[in-house]
Amino acid sequence: LAGDLLASALTTSMYTYELAPIATLIEKQVIREMCRLAGFENGEGIFTTGGSNGNTLGLLCARDRRFPESQRRGMIGRWPVAFVSEEAHYSAYMSANLLGLGSDNLKRIACDERGRMQPEQLKVAIRDAYAEGREPFCIIATAGTTVRGSFDDISEIAPIATQNGLWLHVDAAWGGGALLSPRHRHLLKGLELADSLSWDPHKMMGMPISCSTFMTRECGILASVCAHGDEAHYLFHEEARDRDLGRMSLQCGRRIDALKLWLAWRALGHEGWARRVDRFLELAEYLEQLVLEHPRLQLMSPRVFANVCLRYVPPGSVGEVDLNELNRNLRAQLLQSGRFMISQSMIGDALVLRPVVANPGTDQETLQLLTQTIGRIGDELVGV
Amino acid sequence: LAGDLLASALTTSMYTYELAPIATLIEKQVIREMCRLAGFENGEGIFTTGGSNGNTLGLLCARDRRFPESQRRGMIGRWPVAFVSEEAHYSAYMSANLLGLGSDNLKRIACDERGRMQPEQLKVAIRDAYAEGREPFCIIATAGTTVRGSFDDISEIAPIATQNGLWLHVDAAWGGGALLSPRHRHLLKGLELADSLSWDPHKMMGMPISCSTFMTRECGILASVCAHGDEAHYLFHEEARDRDLGRMSLQCGRRIDALKLWLAWRALGHEGWARRVDRFLELAEYLEQLVLEHPRLQLMSPRVFANVCLRYVPPGSVGEVDLNELNRNLRAQLLQSGRFMISQSMIGDALVLRPVVANPGTDQETLQLLTQTIGRIGDELVGV
Repeated sequence: LAGDLLASALTTSMYTYELAPIATLIEKQVIREMCRLAGFENGEGIFTTGGSNGNTLGLLCARDRRFPESQRRGMIGRWPVAFVSEEAHYSAYMSANLLGLGSDNLKRIACDERGRMQPEQLKVAIRDAYAEGREPFCIIATAGTTVRGSFDDISEIAPIATQNGLWLHVDAAWGGGALLSPRHRHLLKGLELADSLSWDPHKMMGMPISCSTFMTRECGILASVCAHGDEAHYLFHEEARDRDLGRMSLQCGRRIDALKLWLAWRALGHEGWARRVDRFLELAEYLEQLVLEHPRLQLMSPRVFANVCLRYVPPGSVGEVDLNELNRNLRAQLLQSGRFMISQSMIGDALVLRPVVANPGTDQETLQLLTQTIGRIGDELVGV
Repeated sequence: LAGDLLASALTTSMYTYELAPIATLIEKQVIREMCRLAGFENGEGIFTTGGSNGNTLGLLCARDRRFPESQRRGMIGRWPVAFVSEEAHYSAYMSANLLGLGSDNLKRIACDERGRMQPEQLKVAIRDAYAEGREPFCIIATAGTTVRGSFDDISEIAPIATQNGLWLHVDAAWGGGALLSPRHRHLLKGLELADSLSWDPHKMMGMPISCSTFMTRECGILASVCAHGDEAHYLFHEEARDRDLGRMSLQCGRRIDALKLWLAWRALGHEGWARRVDRFLELAEYLEQLVLEHPRLQLMSPRVFANVCLRYVPPGSVGEVDLNELNRNLRAQLLQSGRFMISQSMIGDALVLRPVVANPGTDQETLQLLTQTIGRIGDELVGV
């Protein structure tokens, strides 16, 4: 938070090295560290306005690689297609619309029972696209889906991307935090084979919004997709070409979001981050146990990350009550109690309650109280 | 600043009314006030990540209006063309690239000697585009260009847009501040005829970065271009459809940038804003006079707004010195002195120094010292 206050007070802007020399160096150092954790030894990156922006950049880099003429000529005469899991974040569709690709040209790949993109289905979809005369160019894998916290298996998907010459972008906006923990890093196995990555430290790492990053495995493509900086003689001067971060960004004026993360990193160290992530996942596991042990709570998907999807099921015959309606009402009452704010979503046709453990103030007692409260409200609603 | 600190401390996010009810209402109220000043009586809008993002939204709305199928199908088989002044901000080219339109399909219209888009040239370009079988869909006018602070004549351009069925977006990222002053509002005459507007309160209004807005004259199109929110069952619920700002934004997670502006507005009032803008422009006029009176400073463009473009010209024959090189060195020395930070840019082939008056701490004495210092460094460099 201190870093964010300082960023506001300084109110400087990030587009040129001249305007913000120290901030530029800080941003570069934080990005270098995050690239290292991702296995992008020669990588580079930039702070973005959020995970949506990072996913847009990933798809834009992919578009630029496959259709380099699109920068100047647009998408005239091309029939692109990209692939994403059916449980991906909605920003993938937004990005496809934004970039002029069209959301119909983003193919949804079916997931397995744990919410992971099915590699076999992906292969079929790519083959079908080629057969229809389309031009596949990108796969978006998700590391930490919004609802279930599922991780697509990057080590299986990456070879498919390579074989087909497709860009592989990993949306790790939510799940990137796992990279901080030696114990949980395996969730992103194969990430070093991806072409780009988005990762939001304002999520699991607890930074104030916004604090989001986008990285590429190789250098140079960001400068290529953002080459419009060459128009801006009033900002960018030749002598600082390699230092001006504005040449790698879709933003011109920009907050120093890197500062707060840099300060937090110095305060916590690698071990501090690891402890924090491990603790969240231990607590999520504890919550999972509480749900499994509770006679009237049902775990709606095997837990992988800090998301725990559950619902209340009344005792006796299930067929007589609308469980979605019941759990929607239950959540509304839970919110009104003022003690807990958890979100609801759908898994298939089932409405689920979805607590996520990512607040350093959460402890076992909080989670006990949460499951007890959900149970009690549910009991009251059905009159048990 | 206090508002920004509070936004950081709250670290809430703006996508749903449920998560941020007060912040949503504050954002709506500020936008309503800004729409009123713009003459958008039935307008609506959203806070963005910066002027670049606002211009992207303007072009996206235009694209959606003319090519509504592009959301789902992309730009396949279309040959779009948009028009912008040759002195516009580089984000216009970036937006054209980003949106899959291609920067070649953004036609630069020549400016007059004061840096304003020439309406006759615009008409010719539109006619030519139709003749070539292209599909014109948008004009981007600039209110307050980056270098000279020029204002395209919206009241002349708007009828051309209407006659040709084109969307008119006004990039008032820099010049929007003039709307706050009854004395200077005329610079944006005709704005009420435009379709959309971007305006950055983090510029002349002095808010900490980021604080940028995008507005449309009519309601509904933002929700249409951002319809991907329908994918996000985990965020958006039917009952809050008309209140969730995330349905109108290209961001998901988002800072409460409206808060600081709302607080500043309450503190300053309309009259306070007007006084501030009037004072900046009085000081800019004073600086213009200082330049005109200085024997070796040359005013490089008639002043319109808070930008004053000047250069140092040594006494005697001009042909013998490279004025660009001289003024580039002069600026480098000025920066090294640590007292003044002003930018350089090009007007045509001429390198100009470009102080901009938009800091409440600036007074006449500062400006006297600035012109004296520039004169002195110039004299030293040429050995006068």
